[in-house]
Amino acid sequence: MSKVGFVTMGDAHSDGDAQPIGVGMLGYAFMGKAHANAYKKIAYMTWPPPLLPQLVSIAGRNEEAVSEAARRYGFEGYVTDWKQLVADERVQLFDNSGPNNLHAEPTIAAAEAGKHVICEKPLGRDAGEAYETWQRVAASGVKHMCAFNYRFVPAVRLAREIVESGALGDIQHFRGRYLQEWGATDGNIWRFDKALAGSGALGDLGAHVIDLARYLVGEIAAVSALTATFQPGREVDDAVESAVAFASGAVGTIEASRFCQGRKNHFTWEINGSAGSLAFDLERLNELQYSEGNAGFRTVLVSEADHPFWEHWWPQGHIIGWEHSFVHELHHLLTAIRDDGDVAPHGATFEDGYRAAEICDAMLRSAEQGSRETVQYR
Amino acid sequence: MSKVGFVTMGDAHSDGDAQPIGVGMLGYAFMGKAHANAYKKIAYMTWPPPLLPQLVSIAGRNEEAVSEAARRYGFEGYVTDWKQLVADERVQLFDNSGPNNLHAEPTIAAAEAGKHVICEKPLGRDAGEAYETWQRVAASGVKHMCAFNYRFVPAVRLAREIVESGALGDIQHFRGRYLQEWGATDGNIWRFDKALAGSGALGDLGAHVIDLARYLVGEIAAVSALTATFQPGREVDDAVESAVAFASGAVGTIEASRFCQGRKNHFTWEINGSAGSLAFDLERLNELQYSEGNAGFRTVLVSEADHPFWEHWWPQGHIIGWEHSFVHELHHLLTAIRDDGDVAPHGATFEDGYRAAEICDAMLRSAEQGSRETVQYR
Amino acid sequence: MSKVGFVTMGDAHSDGDAQPIGVGMLGYAFMGKAHANAYKKIAYMTWPPPLLPQLVSIAGRNEEAVSEAARRYGFEGYVTDWKQLVADERVQLFDNSGPNNLHAEPTIAAAEAGKHVICEKPLGRDAGEAYETWQRVAASGVKHMCAFNYRFVPAVRLAREIVESGALGDIQHFRGRYLQEWGATDGNIWRFDKALAGSGALGDLGAHVIDLARYLVGEIAAVSALTATFQPGREVDDAVESAVAFASGAVGTIEASRFCQGRKNHFTWEINGSAGSLAFDLERLNELQYSEGNAGFRTVLVSEADHPFWEHWWPQGHIIGWEHSFVHELHHLLTAIRDDGDVAPHGATFEDGYRAAEICDAMLRSAEQGSRETVQYR
Amino acid sequence: MSKVGFVTMGDAHSDGDAQPIGVGMLGYAFMGKAHANAYKKIAYMTWPPPLLPQLVSIAGRNEEAVSEAARRYGFEGYVTDWKQLVADERVQLFDNSGPNNLHAEPTIAAAEAGKHVICEKPLGRDAGEAYETWQRVAASGVKHMCAFNYRFVPAVRLAREIVESGALGDIQHFRGRYLQEWGATDGNIWRFDKALAGSGALGDLGAHVIDLARYLVGEIAAVSALTATFQPGREVDDAVESAVAFASGAVGTIEASRFCQGRKNHFTWEINGSAGSLAFDLERLNELQYSEGNAGFRTVLVSEADHPFWEHWWPQGHIIGWEHSFVHELHHLLTAIRDDGDVAPHGATFEDGYRAAEICDAMLRSAEQGSRETVQYR
Repeated sequence: MSKVGFVTMGDAHSDGDAQPIGVGMLGYAFMGKAHANAYKKIAYMTWPPPLLPQLVSIAGRNEEAVSEAARRYGFEGYVTDWKQLVADERVQLFDNSGPNNLHAEPTIAAAEAGKHVICEKPLGRDAGEAYETWQRVAASGVKHMCAFNYRFVPAVRLAREIVESGALGDIQHFRGRYLQEWGATDGNIWRFDKALAGSGALGDLGAHVIDLARYLVGEIAAVSALTATFQPGREVDDAVESAVAFASGAVGTIEASRFCQGRKNHFTWEINGSAGSLAFDLERLNELQYSEGNAGFRTVLVSEADHPFWEHWWPQGHIIGWEHSFVHELHHLLTAIRDDGDVAPHGATFEDGYRAAEICDAMLRSAEQGSRETVQYR
Repeated sequence: MSKVGFVTMGDAHSDGDAQPIGVGMLGYAFMGKAHANAYKKIAYMTWPPPLLPQLVSIAGRNEEAVSEAARRYGFEGYVTDWKQLVADERVQLFDNSGPNNLHAEPTIAAAEAGKHVICEKPLGRDAGEAYETWQRVAASGVKHMCAFNYRFVPAVRLAREIVESGALGDIQHFRGRYLQEWGATDGNIWRFDKALAGSGALGDLGAHVIDLARYLVGEIAAVSALTATFQPGREVDDAVESAVAFASGAVGTIEASRFCQGRKNHFTWEINGSAGSLAFDLERLNELQYSEGNAGFRTVLVSEADHPFWEHWWPQGHIIGWEHSFVHELHHLLTAIRDDGDVAPHGATFEDGYRAAEICDAMLRSAEQGSRETVQYR
Repeated sequence: MSKVGFVTMGDAHSDGDAQPIGVGMLGYAFMGKAHANAYKKIAYMTWPPPLLPQLVSIAGRNEEAVSEAARRYGFEGYVTDWKQLVADERVQLFDNSGPNNLHAEPTIAAAEAGKHVICEKPLGRDAGEAYETWQRVAASGVKHMCAFNYRFVPAVRLAREIVESGALGDIQHFRGRYLQEWGATDGNIWRFDKALAGSGALGDLGAHVIDLARYLVGEIAAVSALTATFQPGREVDDAVESAVAFASGAVGTIEASRFCQGRKNHFTWEINGSAGSLAFDLERLNELQYSEGNAGFRTVLVSEADHPFWEHWWPQGHIIGWEHSFVHELHHLLTAIRDDGDVAPHGATFEDGYRAAEICDAMLRSAEQGSRETVQYR
Repeated sequence: MSKVGFVTMGDAHSDGDAQPIGVGMLGYAFMGKAHANAYKKIAYMTWPPPLLPQLVSIAGRNEEAVSEAARRYGFEGYVTDWKQLVADERVQLFDNSGPNNLHAEPTIAAAEAGKHVICEKPLGRDAGEAYETWQRVAASGVKHMCAFNYRFVPAVRLAREIVESGALGDIQHFRGRYLQEWGATDGNIWRFDKALAGSGALGDLGAHVIDLARYLVGEIAAVSALTATFQPGREVDDAVESAVAFASGAVGTIEASRFCQGRKNHFTWEINGSAGSLAFDLERLNELQYSEGNAGFRTVLVSEADHPFWEHWWPQGHIIGWEHSFVHELHHLLTAIRDDGDVAPHGATFEDGYRAAEICDAMLRSAEQGSRETVQYR
């Protein structure tokens, strides 16, 4: 006999088991779109979801734009002053997808109002700002995550697992580059404004390389860097080039530039250990290159049932995209909130955000002074 | 002065401008998940959406599974008999994501009940079944689409645009392969059952190659094929190998196999024309290889603002995944429904589904009889 | 105390241990250059050489050209009639690097005059000619080799070793393509003249694919082929497309074309077995792609001390070129002559040359008649 | 009427037009083999050759080994003391393929004896030694070349031509790496002995990167470097990592290591200019990656009739090997000697050898002192 069923829940999207969590978001541009998409997909692609995101409210200064974003992504309402988000009792998780100059103050305020916080990178425009943000948020006792989303690319997590397993032996090298091509743009965008962005390619792209270097290889002990600004009149760096030494004895390079024609989103890194090597390219983010010993590099299409995060997705070989890193990242954060678990080590905490900022600052000092700078944490 | 706004709509997800369309879905497995995800993303990633999918009801025989799928994807209800979907007046679009043996009857019934229909490929288990499905659905006057989703990969659409522009000159070759590796699986799955699936690698994988050959190069005039079944006791083909001649005079090969170790989802094709060549690999679906004249192959990372479908997504170089082809495909269908426009030529109609089936049948006849078979449409 | 030594040998190039062998060559164009270079390099790069090639005489109809070739490559003399080569008692090895129409008669004459013979491929312009050449040469008792030089690419030999070891399990597929781009050339060259060449892309390029298919996978049982001639007025095929069945049960495709823009010398093949896969591309001839089981393809840079033929060359990673295949091939032949050993199985004999021709003929029959053709040897 | 001709020349290998030049070589190992092979191939592959190399004498301390090398490569004699080479009046070109500690003294002596000189890189074990060698040799008035052979890879020359043409616009970045994997070898080889080699990966591999950086982008103004020695007890660097600034304002990195598992001979570089980018990998040395503007990287298979050096070789797509760079290099030197022309700019002179050494020294100072070091020439 055939059956007809009704899905009788208060919210058409809820899973009977998962508890809701109210999300308030600051920002609706590039990062806002990426985060909103992730919250919506978590509800049905990661099944059962750890918590069910309720998109409560979104903040932005331009009312027309923010109200359209609210309608688009399904937020229940919007505000034009982020302080109203902080004051909103329905908001349990404050998601800061705004520009760099709006990272510290709203995030601290939200945490001090008892909300868990996720903040886009870089955590601060300099190490001091990042440090204060970390300290005050940590003191508040909430969960905090700095959105270094590339930790949540399946191939990156698999790389971490391989390194941790010891299969690469002692790590001797890390070489990371994040290269884009659009730096000659004339536009008057906030990323070129030192007061708003803090730095240029360094904080935007280089910070990602620094974070993965730390995640995959460990602490950076010293840096020797150069920066360049190619565009006349620009305040921030267009490129940074650095030799780096790790606490473990590994050495390598970290580079970032917005002046590399033909490189669309070329974040590549390579790790060499005494027993093998790994290599990665964000433009082919489903692939991990792996040389076991000196056998030569094998293309691992990271899409098999037992690969990291793949339980959420498709049969092998049906690749995922850049946006999926945010699904994994926010899923990880929601799980930590649900279980009162640790965001670290796989998620970047505000301490990680601060440490990346300290290394960025060391690179700028090195570039300015021509000295090798030891990385020191406060 | 700060503002607080409420998104006051009947449905939290609705766009004020887009009209709703009720969707009823048959099937909740691999394809069901892919289609459900697409409907949900259309609502906020393609903005404004052409129509707003309302997930009304989902059908499946296993009540526990289908009720969980309903909850998971946010359907308002579920049924265990597809006829109830057909009878549901709220359903305006019938989405058949079920196995091959459930393609014809439910789809015809839905169309004859006045619902627009999309049906997974292959349209029928053989050309006769596909023909009847096409004829009866076409007679009903509804919109119909056969889900050859690879037409909606941005690189494939770009390839079509390049071919149509004449930039390749006269097309002389098409070579397509769809290779996977899991065929030695012992499992008792419907894809190995001739009565349910119709054929093996041919209908599952080869049909995709045939459809893109037709979409990109034109009608196939004749085929000379071999099939092989490697697994003892299996009823369906494990591999098909075919030389093909196009009506235009181009020649090439079409191959499909489930017995290619290391090939996860290796759908590759190459087109050679008198003025240039194109090549594609589904495992790197964001890339199109393009040799203008004999200049050598250039990797076009199909992710720039003016590339097909890219207005919905991210800054260049931030790649998308396999699942996105369904978003584009269903967006195209919803647009055709809204505008009473044509599904063809970019969407595959049921006529395209039938034609692919006719070519599959010609390959099977050729394989059995050892003859070159002319492709003839009824 | 320092020493001064004189290398006191009759010939400044001789190795004291290696015996000389007199070489007479027919042809001084593309293949003549490749063979001459190989003989000269064998003398000092393969050390000690199996025999020391003495370049006795070279034959060609154009006296000015052949005399310059003799000077260039260091032949002691030249002749304008190949019969004088055959009559030359100093010639112990007759190297036929001439065009296809000069393969049979001079080669047979040389063998019947007691000279070992190597003949460029295709052995004959059709299977009948190849068969007679093989039979008469074999009856003469000399060593004979058909110059399918790609067997002597290190990556190809390594592939053969992997297949023979059983590491791939049962072979299920072979797919080979040899694609070039220059077919629209207007030139009045012998390769477009049916009387001189026998066939077009088939004998020139396809024969290489067929030979490696046999060398790596085994005998071909049946073929279903199409041919195409794109250039108006041309007598020979510009392209051939074929589905093939092997005696072992493996199936696949063989293709050859001179109308593929951007494909410079694109001879690629892939082998899939139940326990792994291999892939190769002549444009990257130092690399072998190897998936052990379903692990994904690993790039083996075939250049390590224990790789085939590498004892003659350089430290690992210092790659070799196309021309080196001839060094290995002729080294193999000289070794067989010195030791009265077998040319087979690694060298292609005239039987292999005949068998390739029989398969070419079967493809032409299949293309003409629209039938699957069984390959039958006389 | 058929003709029989005799090649009646004093030397069977001579071209009637080319004048002979007596070559004396120091060293018979890796580099000696590469140079000897090149001299022999120049005689018939570059036609007509600029000069005809006569292999007069070879020097080495081990009589058994050097006498075998003489026989193998066809030298007329051998000596166990390089001073006898310098004293040999038949020697017009002194080829120093010996280890680093034998670069300066013999080369200076040969030049002061009036012989043209080519010396393997690095020119000296430090900048002082290299400077003296350059100064004294230059004062002697002979032609001098430092064997930075990678300038003579066709793809590298093509890159130089593209940069010189202005097609890349202003150059903003150079990134070069030379990575190998064999550094953990225990062997007691001269390359690990500071007294013999001067430095480790820096002089062996890094010097090549530095030379191509200068050849392709221009003078290096400043370096910030780190070195590492991973192997306990080793005297020389196993790896060097450096950020570099060019006089033009371009910035980048230079790296070299012998501790990169899976990297066989991975010398890669990338150049980014305001109007395009180039990339190269020595393991695929026939390919140049070229993005015109932001079009994406096109694989140029540098093997066409009008590509650099290709007049000597084969039809397009028939690739050459690593050893061919020496043929081009020595052909260039012989041409300069014949025409009393300049070795620069395409050949590296001893001034280039000295400048590379000065940059190496600056890197070592920077590594030791932790300071950015300005490159200053004496």
